[in-house]
Amino acid sequence: GETIRATLFPGDGIGPEIAESVKQVFNVAGVPIEWEEHYVGTEVDPRTESFLTWESLESVRRNKVGLKGPMATPIGKGHRSLNLTLRKELGLYANVRPCNSLPGYKTRYDDVNLVTIRENTEGEYSGLEHQVVRGVVESLKIITRQASLRVAEYAFHYAKANGRERVSAIHKANIMRKTDGLFLKCCREVAEKYPEIQYEEVIIDNCCMTLVKNPVLFDVLVMPNLYGDIISDLCAGLIGGLGLTPSCNIGEGGICLAEAVHGSAPDIAGKNLANPTALMLSAVMMLRHLQFNDKADRIHNAILQTIAEGKYRTADLGGKASTSEFTNAVCDHI
Amino acid sequence: GETIRATLFPGDGIGPEIAESVKQVFNVAGVPIEWEEHYVGTEVDPRTESFLTWESLESVRRNKVGLKGPMATPIGKGHRSLNLTLRKELGLYANVRPCNSLPGYKTRYDDVNLVTIRENTEGEYSGLEHQVVRGVVESLKIITRQASLRVAEYAFHYAKANGRERVSAIHKANIMRKTDGLFLKCCREVAEKYPEIQYEEVIIDNCCMTLVKNPVLFDVLVMPNLYGDIISDLCAGLIGGLGLTPSCNIGEGGICLAEAVHGSAPDIAGKNLANPTALMLSAVMMLRHLQFNDKADRIHNAILQTIAEGKYRTADLGGKASTSEFTNAVCDHI
Ligand SMILES: CC(C)[C@H](C(=O)O)[C@@H](O)C(=O)O
Ligand SMILES: CC(C)[C@H](C(=O)O)[C@@H](O)C(=O)O
Repeated sequence: GETIRATLFPGDGIGPEIAESVKQVFNVAGVPIEWEEHYVGTEVDPRTESFLTWESLESVRRNKVGLKGPMATPIGKGHRSLNLTLRKELGLYANVRPCNSLPGYKTRYDDVNLVTIRENTEGEYSGLEHQVVRGVVESLKIITRQASLRVAEYAFHYAKANGRERVSAIHKANIMRKTDGLFLKCCREVAEKYPEIQYEEVIIDNCCMTLVKNPVLFDVLVMPNLYGDIISDLCAGLIGGLGLTPSCNIGEGGICLAEAVHGSAPDIAGKNLANPTALMLSAVMMLRHLQFNDKADRIHNAILQTIAEGKYRTADLGGKASTSEFTNAVCDHI
Repeated sequence: GETIRATLFPGDGIGPEIAESVKQVFNVAGVPIEWEEHYVGTEVDPRTESFLTWESLESVRRNKVGLKGPMATPIGKGHRSLNLTLRKELGLYANVRPCNSLPGYKTRYDDVNLVTIRENTEGEYSGLEHQVVRGVVESLKIITRQASLRVAEYAFHYAKANGRERVSAIHKANIMRKTDGLFLKCCREVAEKYPEIQYEEVIIDNCCMTLVKNPVLFDVLVMPNLYGDIISDLCAGLIGGLGLTPSCNIGEGGICLAEAVHGSAPDIAGKNLANPTALMLSAVMMLRHLQFNDKADRIHNAILQTIAEGKYRTADLGGKASTSEFTNAVCDHI
């Protein structure tokens, strides 16, 4: 087979270290990927209005596939958040997060096996806010038919392609009748095209209660932006946290940008202490997107085995292993 | 002491049965309360634009204290939701929900001991929505300085009065800088007046993750309307569900309307199967508000003992007891 070019954003803080881990693992597994590395700039690029360079965005647009570590948006004015810029500029309309209990890593929950699919471009993230009069401010939540259909399509497509049985649309349409109502309407339209996939609608407060009581009741969840932000983190908590949760963003023109959604942990950066699991599992999602399924399976199993054995666990999981010890153990399992 | 008049909304479905339980328990405990009972009407009252009668609202305004069972808003157009009408008409600005693990009733979590305080009148519940063009709809989230200060004041006042150590303001001000930003600004202003209470700010996604990982890290949480809706149900899930969670609403002019927040469960209505715990515990909150602390303690302990012993548990808690068996058991413990 030929070599695939993929964009790599190692990101800030612990980003470069955990990106190294992924590269090492990919090398050992013989994944035919050539990385195009791009760092976050130190100055605002006027073409992106952010610290992301135009070239780095062009790289993802050209390669259509990439992997991203954590990016800390520098504080200050006159530029956009890095994550939001990426979502906007690359049209990353769906954020996909499989959430599975890790065998051998005990939390309060067993057998969690669900996927959250979050609309990633609009809703409460419109950025449209203003002061009406002194002491009265408003934010606009925007829901469009186009973005709702697009993410609903993706959710049902994903469910079908991954042998999932049910899609639950999460909403608060009893209060936001028009916006969340439109979102549901779009989900229903798409659901009709997938008679083999069950469809249900769950109000967000009830959904969160059920998730903490009995998360196995859920399969694929699709929802507007803010609910997705909240519920995907809640779900990550069920299996141990953001350090263990992979994610990938689906964008316009077939882009797939896999991403570790945890923070850049500046306090432990450069100390060989970070847990590369979330970035590795995200990289596995990228491989599956590229249909490198054998490589994906081998790497995935190696990660799960290493965690299950429990001999090499990083500090965040209560272990003593360094980033490189954990990474080496994964490589040994490949 | 004299007799206090309090408004009682038994509500729909299982409401009347569980309201009977509360009356029985209050009688046995010798609580000097005379109830003014009001039912939801069968026709829209033009003065309230809902099925709530004007007289029932006047009753709460006059008595300043009340207890409310579940109310199912009849489906159809031309009237307002019952719960939202109550909040609006009575200016119920703070919804308070203590969330405590019940000794003897096992969930995945032990020692949960927190209180959510939800702004109850504005935010995403403004009801202001419209279609911008075909396929594009918007909802307005409104945050005001007045309502934010009021709920923040209540949260700190509550924390101090109840010997709590910390108030956490929950927000998404990294995205909704102006609306949630104003909410936080108000919380900070109030926090300065309470140097003895710790104050922190937690982003909602992170808050939900921490709640499922380690809820004992929280004490008092204060937040805008929708976050409160979501988080209060999530917290109820931690201790077993809405059937066990008390709530009370604080309104303008010192109103206290205690409320069971679970549904009206029409499927089991009238069958002597409902669990009256949430309404009983809400009634206890009402008693504490009236400073009937001895009565409140006696009833509260009787409820906790009955649940802890586990002999009389209703079906929702995995038991076989009827509503009246459970209620009698609570009475026996008083
Ligand atoms: C960092 C923040 C802007 C972001 C979001 O709110 O979307 C994060 O929470 C996420 O989920 O990726
Ligand atoms: C029934 C519904 C309108 C209500 C809300 O969203 O506030 C409920 O979920 C609650 O928490 O009291």
